[in-house]
Amino acid sequence: MSGQDQCERAIGGSLVRTQGVTAPSGFRATGISAGIKASGKPDLALVFNEGPDYAAAGVFTRNKVKAAPVLWTQQVMTTRALRAVVLNSGGANACTGPLGFQDTHATAEAVAKALSAWGTETGAIEVAVCSTGLIGDRLPMDRVLAGVQNVVRELAGGLTGGAEAAQAIMTTDTVPKQVALHHDDSWTVGAMAKGAGMMAPSLATMLCVITTDAVADADALDRALRHAAARTFDRLDIDGSCSTNDTVLLLASGASEIAPSQAELDAAVLAVCDDLCAQLQADAEGVTKRVAITVTGAASEADAVTAARVIARDSLVKTALFGSDPNWGRVLAAVGMAPVDLEPDRISVSFNGFPVCIDGAGAPGARDVDLSGADITVTVDLGVGTGVGTVRTTDLSHAYVEENSAYSS
Amino acid sequence: MSGQDQCERAIGGSLVRTQGVTAPSGFRATGISAGIKASGKPDLALVFNEGPDYAAAGVFTRNKVKAAPVLWTQQVMTTRALRAVVLNSGGANACTGPLGFQDTHATAEAVAKALSAWGTETGAIEVAVCSTGLIGDRLPMDRVLAGVQNVVRELAGGLTGGAEAAQAIMTTDTVPKQVALHHDDSWTVGAMAKGAGMMAPSLATMLCVITTDAVADADALDRALRHAAARTFDRLDIDGSCSTNDTVLLLASGASEIAPSQAELDAAVLAVCDDLCAQLQADAEGVTKRVAITVTGAASEADAVTAARVIARDSLVKTALFGSDPNWGRVLAAVGMAPVDLEPDRISVSFNGFPVCIDGAGAPGARDVDLSGADITVTVDLGVGTGVGTVRTTDLSHAYVEENSAYSS
Repeated sequence: MSGQDQCERAIGGSLVRTQGVTAPSGFRATGISAGIKASGKPDLALVFNEGPDYAAAGVFTRNKVKAAPVLWTQQVMTTRALRAVVLNSGGANACTGPLGFQDTHATAEAVAKALSAWGTETGAIEVAVCSTGLIGDRLPMDRVLAGVQNVVRELAGGLTGGAEAAQAIMTTDTVPKQVALHHDDSWTVGAMAKGAGMMAPSLATMLCVITTDAVADADALDRALRHAAARTFDRLDIDGSCSTNDTVLLLASGASEIAPSQAELDAAVLAVCDDLCAQLQADAEGVTKRVAITVTGAASEADAVTAARVIARDSLVKTALFGSDPNWGRVLAAVGMAPVDLEPDRISVSFNGFPVCIDGAGAPGARDVDLSGADITVTVDLGVGTGVGTVRTTDLSHAYVEENSAYSS
Repeated sequence: MSGQDQCERAIGGSLVRTQGVTAPSGFRATGISAGIKASGKPDLALVFNEGPDYAAAGVFTRNKVKAAPVLWTQQVMTTRALRAVVLNSGGANACTGPLGFQDTHATAEAVAKALSAWGTETGAIEVAVCSTGLIGDRLPMDRVLAGVQNVVRELAGGLTGGAEAAQAIMTTDTVPKQVALHHDDSWTVGAMAKGAGMMAPSLATMLCVITTDAVADADALDRALRHAAARTFDRLDIDGSCSTNDTVLLLASGASEIAPSQAELDAAVLAVCDDLCAQLQADAEGVTKRVAITVTGAASEADAVTAARVIARDSLVKTALFGSDPNWGRVLAAVGMAPVDLEPDRISVSFNGFPVCIDGAGAPGARDVDLSGADITVTVDLGVGTGVGTVRTTDLSHAYVEENSAYSS
């Protein structure tokens, strides 16, 4: 489902990509260059919730190897409230041992102290930390701590720089990703995200901060976020590699004084997450094709998603799509390994709506389907039930190999 | 373990790669060009067991989508005996429906009839069929059936052309793969194999015919083959994609009149399979690095192999190795997703024997390890038990993408 379709289904709202986390009332954000990246590009962002509410929810990587900021933020989220999120690119602070965790803690402390000095009494336990970049190296903490002072000073200056924040969390991303949904009932959901590689569905596969000025408690936020993540980030699979740092946070300020129904909140958060997924897919490392793998006729929705994911991860399917080659046999070979109910002789496959395989055997003209466009839909009907699910992926291109072999990232 | 090491462990035998399936007494083989391949290259091979014994064993793809020749040969193997194996490249005869199965059956019938005419009374149920090539198209049966006449005529001429047979089963392979182990006790195991892509461990991931002149019944052959396959083909993973056509057959003629012990047979078959795996790995599609991933300290051998396989399939690990980049963080991120017992803070990693990560954090000099050679060993110690396992893989290179996107294969 495209962001546009999703938007139309969302009750009375419209999506704009020119705004992000500061679109809702009650949020400030900015991004600066703190010198963490050798390139001097922006690398430190802060999102600040002015209230009056501070309810929050979060979902995190399912990788057993979790970065220090993930371990810290999971502790913070036990309070189900957040005043601020500090995010850095230029280093993942993953696999850095106890000292790396101390670095994350010190960063949260520094943010809390600087915000308190600015007149907003804040404790470190109210500050989430997100990091992204190369795994395995300690962060340059002198630069991080000096950067924290600067980024809070900028924020105190009254700037609401959601776009700058979205810029500062980029790694191999080529464009910043942000979106806002303005609900007709005068409340708003805004968000930013980063992520271009090491993306596979495990709750969330990148950094993402979502804000809203709706009045919603932590339970409502948690429900809306899990509902959306399961249908969006969980079904985005660029390279099957799950990051150590994945974090998605949802913060509510309540500043609109409007309390939407759970269904309205669910729909709005889903629309925003869906649009961000489309942006992440379109800017994935080495992407030349945006591919949607839909499995229908599965025994269950879970089976459909599982089968779609197995196809989406298959290197031979992905290289064929890079070559615009309608090599449907590779789709059959891939789905045959999926741990789901299937009957080989009942499987049918379409590329871009054109049937290429019917009941497990080739259809006339199957080798001539035109896959030269940038968008490719692959539909696989298992013919055993009514379960349906879609996974978004990309092709496997020379550019992906180049980007991921030429330097440490 | 290299083929050489393995060889030395095999009791009193030596491996030579200049011979293959016709090295043992009692076997004839040859390969011809039947016109199945548009290129005119050799594409039809026959291996014939002159006896006096005909015991045989086989292992097959675990893919639920099985090619017609696999379905046929699985039926044949219920008799636990084989007189002949006919193999074609130029077409997988997979996903071809009931007509494709009839084609396989007709091929076996034609081989049986031609062999009978030559004076060797043979039934179709004694003839295994193997096919490899593009999935989804019917074979050109007029050429296949004419080729069967020619290949049997060649064989009747008395030629023992194991090398020609190994040549005729190649697809994207650049070199034929064969090996023979001459046991000091005057019995021999010979073999040939093909396979360069769509290789992932699922019993067998290519076509392979192994012959021996030892006296051994079907039980002994089955045990030796499963023992060897589990430790060799099952631990070779080039691209995580399991074929629809994988078949490994082991035929015994008994012509040496020597009956080795089960342990001797196991060791010899293992040595031959291990050597073939090294050959398959070295000629894999797009390979620039031969990579062995060893996991130690796992809770069990099964956990070790599972974890090694997850690392071996990770696109970001494989592209880093292509770039000779000691990016050990990607190894940690990959193993963190393996469904095995592990403690992130107890994981240690070495590249080519050099420690790059100790107890989950970077080791001094880790970024400077030289991975520029063609052979790379990655050792991951989970620190939770005594299980050990190795998976062979390759890097993910531009050549792999090129080979698999440029044309249907």
